[in-house]
Amino acid sequence: MYQYEMFELSLTGEPPQGSQALFTFQTVFHLDGEEKTVKGFYAGSNTYKVRFLPKKTGRYSWKTESIIPLEGPVAGEEECLPARTGRHGMVKTEGLHFVYEDGTKYLPFGTTIYALAHQSGEIIEQTMHTLEHAPFNKVRHCIFPKHYRYNHNEPQFFPFEKNAEGKWDVHRPCMDYWEHFEKILVRLGDMGIETDLILFHPYDRWGFSIMSMEEWKIHLDYLLRRLSAYPFIWWSLANEYDLMFNRTMEDWYEIEEFVAANDCYGHLLSNHNCVHFYDFTRPNVTHCCIQTDGMHKAAEWQERYQKPVVFDECCYEGNIDMAWGNISAFELVNRFWRGCIQGAFVTHGETYVSEDEVLWWARGGRLKGQSAQRIAFLKDFLYSLPSCISPWKEPFVMGPDDRNITATVFEKPEEAYERFRALVNTEERELSQAKDACYYGHCGDQVYIKYFARQCCAMCFLTLPEDKKYEVEIIDAWEMTRTTALEEACGRVEVRLPGKEGIAVIAKQLP
Amino acid sequence: MYQYEMFELSLTGEPPQGSQALFTFQTVFHLDGEEKTVKGFYAGSNTYKVRFLPKKTGRYSWKTESIIPLEGPVAGEEECLPARTGRHGMVKTEGLHFVYEDGTKYLPFGTTIYALAHQSGEIIEQTMHTLEHAPFNKVRHCIFPKHYRYNHNEPQFFPFEKNAEGKWDVHRPCMDYWEHFEKILVRLGDMGIETDLILFHPYDRWGFSIMSMEEWKIHLDYLLRRLSAYPFIWWSLANEYDLMFNRTMEDWYEIEEFVAANDCYGHLLSNHNCVHFYDFTRPNVTHCCIQTDGMHKAAEWQERYQKPVVFDECCYEGNIDMAWGNISAFELVNRFWRGCIQGAFVTHGETYVSEDEVLWWARGGRLKGQSAQRIAFLKDFLYSLPSCISPWKEPFVMGPDDRNITATVFEKPEEAYERFRALVNTEERELSQAKDACYYGHCGDQVYIKYFARQCCAMCFLTLPEDKKYEVEIIDAWEMTRTTALEEACGRVEVRLPGKEGIAVIAKQLP
Repeated sequence: MYQYEMFELSLTGEPPQGSQALFTFQTVFHLDGEEKTVKGFYAGSNTYKVRFLPKKTGRYSWKTESIIPLEGPVAGEEECLPARTGRHGMVKTEGLHFVYEDGTKYLPFGTTIYALAHQSGEIIEQTMHTLEHAPFNKVRHCIFPKHYRYNHNEPQFFPFEKNAEGKWDVHRPCMDYWEHFEKILVRLGDMGIETDLILFHPYDRWGFSIMSMEEWKIHLDYLLRRLSAYPFIWWSLANEYDLMFNRTMEDWYEIEEFVAANDCYGHLLSNHNCVHFYDFTRPNVTHCCIQTDGMHKAAEWQERYQKPVVFDECCYEGNIDMAWGNISAFELVNRFWRGCIQGAFVTHGETYVSEDEVLWWARGGRLKGQSAQRIAFLKDFLYSLPSCISPWKEPFVMGPDDRNITATVFEKPEEAYERFRALVNTEERELSQAKDACYYGHCGDQVYIKYFARQCCAMCFLTLPEDKKYEVEIIDAWEMTRTTALEEACGRVEVRLPGKEGIAVIAKQLP
Repeated sequence: MYQYEMFELSLTGEPPQGSQALFTFQTVFHLDGEEKTVKGFYAGSNTYKVRFLPKKTGRYSWKTESIIPLEGPVAGEEECLPARTGRHGMVKTEGLHFVYEDGTKYLPFGTTIYALAHQSGEIIEQTMHTLEHAPFNKVRHCIFPKHYRYNHNEPQFFPFEKNAEGKWDVHRPCMDYWEHFEKILVRLGDMGIETDLILFHPYDRWGFSIMSMEEWKIHLDYLLRRLSAYPFIWWSLANEYDLMFNRTMEDWYEIEEFVAANDCYGHLLSNHNCVHFYDFTRPNVTHCCIQTDGMHKAAEWQERYQKPVVFDECCYEGNIDMAWGNISAFELVNRFWRGCIQGAFVTHGETYVSEDEVLWWARGGRLKGQSAQRIAFLKDFLYSLPSCISPWKEPFVMGPDDRNITATVFEKPEEAYERFRALVNTEERELSQAKDACYYGHCGDQVYIKYFARQCCAMCFLTLPEDKKYEVEIIDAWEMTRTTALEEACGRVEVRLPGKEGIAVIAKQLP
């Protein structure tokens, strides 16, 4: 037993008489007077398992209670050794950011491979190979198979078996499926990749999306007992929950409550929209999972929700005919920078048409685009910073020419500006927010960053603290270059820029 | 006297005793029992003038009434000959579009040279030379000089003289100024360029922006008597009216009413915002003059206001440090296409930093950018179409994979979609509108156009009428190329595209 790694007990007994999904037993783990009760599950072939995620080191003891007689290590004790190298525990939120349980920095750089687990062995191997060499440390993928354009293959396994009438029977989990799925989960986890597990979604020809709420909950009950003890898993209640027209908001709240109540470790939890955001103010929701390309709203949403903001779909690099799947590599990289410089997070996806119809976003395989290496560059840059980024409100300095604008006829120009702002309606506000296309971030006084997105400035001003000294660098997000612009800057300084898109300026405090 | 050209009577008399601006006399023009009363003005040097714009051919007679005795052609008659070549009369609106009085097509392709008239003779000559070779047929420029960044030169003339105390005296127009200004107006007009005249603006070090309402109206009274008979003039009440903090909305309505009441020809009239749109529903307002880069809203605003939509500032091609002045040439061209393909109109501006600080947007001079020639290409394309463009709602065709989305479990999927839409709030609606980045236009059944903006599609579908045949072309907005893709298309067709930004597809009905 190691800290932060799943510990599994394997017991044997006669198969359950009724439901193989709902049948449950429990094991109580003890450490230093604390106890944790963990539900077990039937794993097929007369095997029962219970999985436990130890958070602390020390000597654990356990005891199993079951109606069906079980054999094997029903009770016992074992030393939990300190975490092995590279094992940092679950990812948790900390303010507007994420962090591993052991305090290690974690900045999500996700990608999207919806039907990762439902592909042939060959494609899965190729995907794993690609991921080994890619910057991504989170993958959004689905427990259920997906049916949609460029994604028509029939998977080998499904989460449950069918009954005699040919209908899905949630009471009979397909053990081959779960073993297959868990292997993928563990391989990703071993590579340092979190699974942002999509529990439900509407792109479905098999009927999983239109099961009853009761069936969904039976499925979830089993899933949570099997998977919760893995440290590298997040719950995404759905992909585009608002396209599941058979569910109401109340249904989703019920599902959310069910997941939260049956996950004894408190994994990250959110829900992904098509258009209407889930209610991120709900206590069970740990972070904002948003489909939108409105990166300019990141700071506003951080302020509104006081939770990390993850742009978990902002269109994909690719060339398919649908608007969400044909932005340029440059534009995807641009969206990453726009989001990340405000201390938010952005998720990748790729949709290049290919002969074999294996598009990364749906099925995995190989990456064909040009954004991933630039995302790696951004990731390295952000990991090199002394802390997570917060949005920066650069001090406003009124220029000599601004003073001549009519406002200055007033003794109190603030009042005039207030009146000006009061005229602005929601539509105009949204439009003007989208227009202001420079993004600001900082790490306390140590680092100040401005990202100019598509602005092609030949110069800019930076307003830095007067009493500290900074090295100012120009970063080209696409070319992946860093050039020193000023060696000892303080106060308001002018920086000459190359007058092209995709440029950031960073001021790092000198020691 | 020619139809659609300003006809001027020059009379002599002693100078007015009091105000040289308010003093007025009137001449009544008669044609076939119709009469029109036109106010005259004092033009300096014992000269009084009255200017008349004849709309019809025929023999006009006139008679002048004045308290001060005037000499010269106070009464008389003259044949108004048919319009000379290239003289089409005033531009009027027609539904969501513009048209010359004689029915000739007019699609505004404007540019912005705010302080055009307040530059040295040398710069003005250079500007005129540039305009001769540029595609622009409208210039937004100011009656008052402008003070702002890159725009600090002192003009030679001002609209009025100062009094003995050194304060501006609106009762004493500066005749040199007006003659100078009118020369520019006429030179533009002779080149087929409309002046979109900005009557007020906040960028001012001389005090014109903070005069009293009464002073403004005296100024306007004189201006309208001098300039209204020129056919190639539009009234733009202000540039960024909402930054003139000394004015309320009621003040603007009063100014608007004053202009409309004192312009006996009914020139085009609107008002230009910084953030808060002017109320375009007001009857005097002929078109929507909007500062925004929200080109995706064009069709919505056409529907809302039922007037032509002109994006009279959508950021400028350039490289200055301000967000409104540093978009790439590609992006400005992209915004032109996005607007124009919906049947709206877009205005150009250029802000490249240069040694001499002559930036086109403020002062004119030379164009240094790369958008103008692409705008010319777009203009030629739009003029070649059989009619003005209206937004096109391409018929929605549900693909086989869409049918599997959960909606189809309902007998009435429309109800499900309705529930989905009902969830969406204003913020989400604005975001999702901005995201859908394909633009649709058509000329009846004759032409269908889709502009893909920054979408990099490798293919698209076009849903054309089944009973007609179309030639389908691919247009590259930046490279300015047109390539035939399909020769005889009808119904739903697939078009292979180059998978890059800035591509349009056009289907033209075959004869």
